[in-house]
Amino acid sequence: MQFATRLQNVETSAIRELFKLLGKPGIISFAGGFPDPALFDAQGIAQASAAVLASNPGPVLQYGATEGFGPLREGIAGFMAGKGASVTPEGLIVTTGSQQALDLIGKTMISPGDKVIVEAPTFLATIQCFRLYGAQIIGAPIDADGVDVDKLEALIEEHRPKLVYLIPTFGNPSGATLSLERRKRILEIAARTQTLVVEDDPYGELYFDQAPPPSLLALSADVPGSRDWLAHCGSFSKILSPGLRVGWMIAPPELLAKATMCKQFSDAHTSNLTQAICAHYLTMDRLNDTLKVVRRTYAERAQVMAESLRRELGDAIDFNQPQGGMFFWARLTGDRGQLSDATEFAQRAIDKLVAFVPGAPFYAHDPDHHTLRLSFATADVAKIAEGIARLGQAL
Amino acid sequence: MQFATRLQNVETSAIRELFKLLGKPGIISFAGGFPDPALFDAQGIAQASAAVLASNPGPVLQYGATEGFGPLREGIAGFMAGKGASVTPEGLIVTTGSQQALDLIGKTMISPGDKVIVEAPTFLATIQCFRLYGAQIIGAPIDADGVDVDKLEALIEEHRPKLVYLIPTFGNPSGATLSLERRKRILEIAARTQTLVVEDDPYGELYFDQAPPPSLLALSADVPGSRDWLAHCGSFSKILSPGLRVGWMIAPPELLAKATMCKQFSDAHTSNLTQAICAHYLTMDRLNDTLKVVRRTYAERAQVMAESLRRELGDAIDFNQPQGGMFFWARLTGDRGQLSDATEFAQRAIDKLVAFVPGAPFYAHDPDHHTLRLSFATADVAKIAEGIARLGQAL
Repeated sequence: MQFATRLQNVETSAIRELFKLLGKPGIISFAGGFPDPALFDAQGIAQASAAVLASNPGPVLQYGATEGFGPLREGIAGFMAGKGASVTPEGLIVTTGSQQALDLIGKTMISPGDKVIVEAPTFLATIQCFRLYGAQIIGAPIDADGVDVDKLEALIEEHRPKLVYLIPTFGNPSGATLSLERRKRILEIAARTQTLVVEDDPYGELYFDQAPPPSLLALSADVPGSRDWLAHCGSFSKILSPGLRVGWMIAPPELLAKATMCKQFSDAHTSNLTQAICAHYLTMDRLNDTLKVVRRTYAERAQVMAESLRRELGDAIDFNQPQGGMFFWARLTGDRGQLSDATEFAQRAIDKLVAFVPGAPFYAHDPDHHTLRLSFATADVAKIAEGIARLGQAL
Repeated sequence: MQFATRLQNVETSAIRELFKLLGKPGIISFAGGFPDPALFDAQGIAQASAAVLASNPGPVLQYGATEGFGPLREGIAGFMAGKGASVTPEGLIVTTGSQQALDLIGKTMISPGDKVIVEAPTFLATIQCFRLYGAQIIGAPIDADGVDVDKLEALIEEHRPKLVYLIPTFGNPSGATLSLERRKRILEIAARTQTLVVEDDPYGELYFDQAPPPSLLALSADVPGSRDWLAHCGSFSKILSPGLRVGWMIAPPELLAKATMCKQFSDAHTSNLTQAICAHYLTMDRLNDTLKVVRRTYAERAQVMAESLRRELGDAIDFNQPQGGMFFWARLTGDRGQLSDATEFAQRAIDKLVAFVPGAPFYAHDPDHHTLRLSFATADVAKIAEGIARLGQAL
């Protein structure tokens, strides 16, 4: 059987191989990108499901509009308004998780050979999703304040990309958050160079002490012309439940219309039942309480991870402590002749029954083999301390 | 903003324009392709939802495997075994409705310029889905026994298509069912010419008196080599609820693996909650009772539609009475100087407050402008009789 040639561009994920090892008994895993299921408000979701199936089940169980379930589009518009971003229900579509928003952007925008700029490192599934459409991916360097805007601007001028993809807040895998000043500059560059910027924002609500800077979407109101070159992807996956597969996409009207047409032939529409559950949940006044628990729990875990890393690995490892999200991004320094290759370190760690993801696959090209990603979302504080101690032994 | 060029290949659907008119007060619609929501087992679905969220909500609300929720893959394998088709849980993946199965086949198999053979007429969203991947679509003629196999074979030899897409049972829009003899011949041709055949089977359970011939999938066990060239798409949309968006795809291992990779970057996985609901529902012993009611109701409606068409339109219209499914496919004869253009007929019908879909958009090329599709699924028998009487007046 002959397959479409673009499939050759996507390598079998190195991470997939690693994940096969996670079933080992007694392993402590910092490898996943999953939220902690113990923090899901299962009771609230069950109440929402019962309510929408009891009151008027017909429209919930029937085919629905490709754009999304009306009450949910209204609910998301209200949710975004609470985060300082003005959008009408018609200005967004509901997607089957925000992964589908990325896929629809790829399907709508990318022809083989088109260039796309992403952060180096960035979300692995974005690189692979866009490569399936034949994109040439170019990485822009980042530091603790997010993408380096001077270098990003130069790359845009040089490559004239079809789009720039960013996770400005608590990035995956970087944990970095783009500063307010850089956010404004990026919006100005987008408007001036007429370059579509895709803001992926799954983690913005997972802040520890204080809210991060406003999203690019919220800030676009202050930067003339920038809203015309901005798409924003959001998701209930990290704040409510990824198993529901409900995300959304906010974009300029023409892009939104084309993406809707692509979605019609991708999956017709997102499950009305899970959409109705999310819509009802937003009216239940439970989300803020749920988020308070999630923020407190993740903050505590991140603090323990930071302290443990300093104690157990000392100057063998370098990292910036994230202020939210789910990830530490760290770099082996190789100081005093210690191990500096993260893939070899991951192998040794597995032998000590602790897992993380080496950083190389998160780069579209020119990987930094000293880097690694540690998730603090799913292990409790005792396991985090123990797991990092094992890492110290492995090193 | 510049969009990927392949989007130019998909016309704004003529049907979309028609559907805007369906909000008119008092209209009787035979236009939709929707099942009757009054026949959904909302109570059973609510029970299933409550059960899966009460017992062990974590895995249901967490991220899941791209291939699908384990218990559902087992449930579907059992369901298919009940229809005479042997498949292991690992031999199928769950999709976000069967529309996504088609999309994954397109994404996996089709490169721009590749040829695809479909029935003429066929499901509109399939034509458009494959065109988004740059396919050149070629229509094979059908009659009351489904696709003309001699002509299909000649078209395969001539065009060497990437795949052949068929709805062998109670086709949309044709209502036609492929005979047992033709099914076997198609499997032989697939194996001999090494051509992938995609069997889309959303309607097979909606039979009136007796079950249709076994699916191509079931019959492939008797035709050596044919299973290697066969993909099968199924769905809960017409038998349980389309709002859940749960379908499945059975395919040779290499194709299934590639499609799974494409799905990973399309929507990560289908909603675990709706998958778990379907899995639980299959264990509840309610599906057979639900299907009995659906079959009886649709059979009665189809009978009334057939009688009404004969009484009200006589020899102005030609049709084969379907033995299942949701559709009549009819052709204006133009006898005795009567109207023979179905698009003009549809306009006149709207003025008389009755709607149907002209047949032309269901052809990939060379449309027959005399044809039309009438759905009997959603109007009750009184409305069907009244609606067809209005059609008689419109003519």
